[in-house]
Amino acid sequence: MSIPDVHIFPHATGAAATTVAKHQEPQDLIFYAGWFCPYVQRAWIALEEKGIPYQYKEVNPYKKEAHFLAINPKGLVPAVEYKGRALYESLVLCEFFEDAYPSTKSMFPADPVDRAVARIWLDHISKTFMPAHHKLLQVQDPAKQKEHLQEMNEFLRKFAAAVKGPYFFGEEFGIVDLAIAPWIIRDWVVQEHRGYSRADVSPEWKTYAENVEKRESVINTTSLREHTLEIYGRYLRDEAQSAAARAIREGRVIP
Amino acid sequence: MSIPDVHIFPHATGAAATTVAKHQEPQDLIFYAGWFCPYVQRAWIALEEKGIPYQYKEVNPYKKEAHFLAINPKGLVPAVEYKGRALYESLVLCEFFEDAYPSTKSMFPADPVDRAVARIWLDHISKTFMPAHHKLLQVQDPAKQKEHLQEMNEFLRKFAAAVKGPYFFGEEFGIVDLAIAPWIIRDWVVQEHRGYSRADVSPEWKTYAENVEKRESVINTTSLREHTLEIYGRYLRDEAQSAAARAIREGRVIP
Repeated sequence: MSIPDVHIFPHATGAAATTVAKHQEPQDLIFYAGWFCPYVQRAWIALEEKGIPYQYKEVNPYKKEAHFLAINPKGLVPAVEYKGRALYESLVLCEFFEDAYPSTKSMFPADPVDRAVARIWLDHISKTFMPAHHKLLQVQDPAKQKEHLQEMNEFLRKFAAAVKGPYFFGEEFGIVDLAIAPWIIRDWVVQEHRGYSRADVSPEWKTYAENVEKRESVINTTSLREHTLEIYGRYLRDEAQSAAARAIREGRVIP
Repeated sequence: MSIPDVHIFPHATGAAATTVAKHQEPQDLIFYAGWFCPYVQRAWIALEEKGIPYQYKEVNPYKKEAHFLAINPKGLVPAVEYKGRALYESLVLCEFFEDAYPSTKSMFPADPVDRAVARIWLDHISKTFMPAHHKLLQVQDPAKQKEHLQEMNEFLRKFAAAVKGPYFFGEEFGIVDLAIAPWIIRDWVVQEHRGYSRADVSPEWKTYAENVEKRESVINTTSLREHTLEIYGRYLRDEAQSAAARAIREGRVIP
């Protein structure tokens, strides 16, 4: 029997807890978050990188509060409340931060072709990396796990070959980096439980992953491993009840 | 046995052929297209709406030419060659046209929240509408077809309820409209072969669909039905060999 996800650990810990504590004051932008969610971390990294004033509100996505559901009926995190309107979808939020806060540091390259290249990679991450990674976590058959590990590694190898270094587009940490960073910071899960190793992907990937995990905004939005593993345990036993977990189990697109 | 897709009708017809004829001169932007492809039509509508100078090049995606494959190894259309670099993915191209031609009419609303709402709907179209529509076309079991028709209609009903009218965001034809327009203009296929009817979705959807199909840029990028049906016949018999068709057949994400 699955442990209901409603009992997940209720708040950020470690460096992420310090960041949360700094963002309790009311602001124009309310950031609805789940401390453990990698999609949340993408938008959170963008907020931190850009220095946008925001109020952090923890939402247990399996036990949603009335106001949150009223503005955001699907109840997904990350979500943003801005002047009374609700927005969601991690990468949509990142684009929104660019549009709504044009005077902050951009997460996108300046060149239009590079911006398009960034968006192509974001699309690859969503359509190739995510399904492979989710299947690797959830699938129980070892032969299938090996297949999904190879699928994921093959993607990461191509990705790393496109990295200019130290970050995707060179010196500037940006949208492509923050889109994959949450899975780099959590890759000890697949290392410990699914035979993944950064070095097995490629030396370039290993170097890139080390650069990304040292980024201040990444560190400051990361909680302790202990509680993270509690949650990943449900994925590893294919007992998780999140929308993404159910989609993978039922052979549907990750919503 | 499937008829190899390589034998598809080789060029645009009707109003689309007239538009192609007007865009043969070399330009900074080369638009690699397949006249029948709905994803191509999205980017094509954007080019027409924005009045960007472009050179149209027809690519048979199942018989790709060497130069095209050299710049764009995946060989997908729509693609753009701009100053020697290749870009692809219909919605990425639409964003690129905004970035590279900032003085042309924007396909996005001006308000940052509305821009995010537009991107959320683009995401819904990709993740909910597309899979339902592709399955409706390809699945052969009538009971399953009915299920996917309901899925698709339910999405379109929600979509239409969000339309301000005459277009998605009101008076201005924009990104959300062009993202769904190619499937409106082709919906006679599912009407004739899968029991779809605009009126069955909702009166709002019927009105919206009629508004979109009357748009000049939509008309001017649409070929004759005759050759379109040749191609759709392969989908309707589940014999198509496009990347999307194979993905649906194999239960994968549409690439």
